[in-house]
Amino acid sequence: MTATAAAAPSDAPARRGRPGYDRAAILGIAVTLFNEQGYDATSVADLAARLGVTKSALYHHFSSRDELLEQALDVALGGLEGVLAEPAATEGTPAERLDAVLRGAVRVLVDRLPYVTLLLRVRGNSDVERAALARRRAFDQAVTTLVREAQDAGLVRRDIDGAVTTRLVFGMINSLVEWYRPAGAIDRDRLTHDIVTIALDGMRTR
Amino acid sequence: MTATAAAAPSDAPARRGRPGYDRAAILGIAVTLFNEQGYDATSVADLAARLGVTKSALYHHFSSRDELLEQALDVALGGLEGVLAEPAATEGTPAERLDAVLRGAVRVLVDRLPYVTLLLRVRGNSDVERAALARRRAFDQAVTTLVREAQDAGLVRRDIDGAVTTRLVFGMINSLVEWYRPAGAIDRDRLTHDIVTIALDGMRTR
Repeated sequence: MTATAAAAPSDAPARRGRPGYDRAAILGIAVTLFNEQGYDATSVADLAARLGVTKSALYHHFSSRDELLEQALDVALGGLEGVLAEPAATEGTPAERLDAVLRGAVRVLVDRLPYVTLLLRVRGNSDVERAALARRRAFDQAVTTLVREAQDAGLVRRDIDGAVTTRLVFGMINSLVEWYRPAGAIDRDRLTHDIVTIALDGMRTR
Repeated sequence: MTATAAAAPSDAPARRGRPGYDRAAILGIAVTLFNEQGYDATSVADLAARLGVTKSALYHHFSSRDELLEQALDVALGGLEGVLAEPAATEGTPAERLDAVLRGAVRVLVDRLPYVTLLLRVRGNSDVERAALARRRAFDQAVTTLVREAQDAGLVRRDIDGAVTTRLVFGMINSLVEWYRPAGAIDRDRLTHDIVTIALDGMRTR
């Protein structure tokens, strides 16, 4: 996960024809391109053309297209795994920790939207993709464990299945990539509020 | 929507080499193939090969690949629109109607899973796709209106946005296509219970 910090998300626009991209800028543009046309359909030549640099200039920063994918997926996964390691997610009641994990996950999704979008499209077509899926499963498993702890403590209702609940709530959170645009009318705090409110307390008044 | 009844979902396995498919069986196999390899990448020749029939045998039933797509999307959309027209969705308090719409939507998703999967991948690349997206938006709008009526009636909390809530709850429901398998351990009633419970009342006990 230390690589994540080095390759922090960057949404810097492509400065076509200008040399001197750093790793993070190249990664940001690669992710945009992968999301636009699919990873499998994107060659190093496509990326070099988008950046306006030569392929050898790219290989100065990344040894392969697969390394770009690996680093990009690590930005998303490192963000989610970082949420689980935060004090708010490790201290307090299981319900408080669950609240913190959901808030943190929404924050990561919004802040690293193109990276998480890429992650959610991974189907396991290579070693890099399979490793990413394994990390995603481990994250889901940690959340499911937390849901079950909260159920055991009487803080989350027992008549819903822990694993199904985790999938459903993350289905709701992950659906953001389909429609949410950070520059739009709904800010991150507002969105986080609505998601966490529905997941924990539901739509219905009582 | 009358076409929907004629082309009811069919999960009949491909009977390779055996002639005599009806429209519904062809449609079911076409949808499976579209979901496997993408609509744009699937030719009529691919479908004929999968069915073990000639292209002209296919054209006896469908005038074009686009007609197959249109009919397949109509199975999904007709199902969802049918939910809105059911008595349970048109009578009672807005909260009761909302409950009925959510239950009905889960039922349609599970029963017509390959068709809804196809619908959720539509991006508006043709007139048929754009018409499907327009019907999907109209459905979302009807649900949003219902959420707002329930808010006005004091039955749904007012501190969440109606349109965002509809998107989030359907994000949760639609995420089923990523992992739910009707033949698996979680039956439809169990799944429906968990979804409707979380959406309306949340995970947390009180």
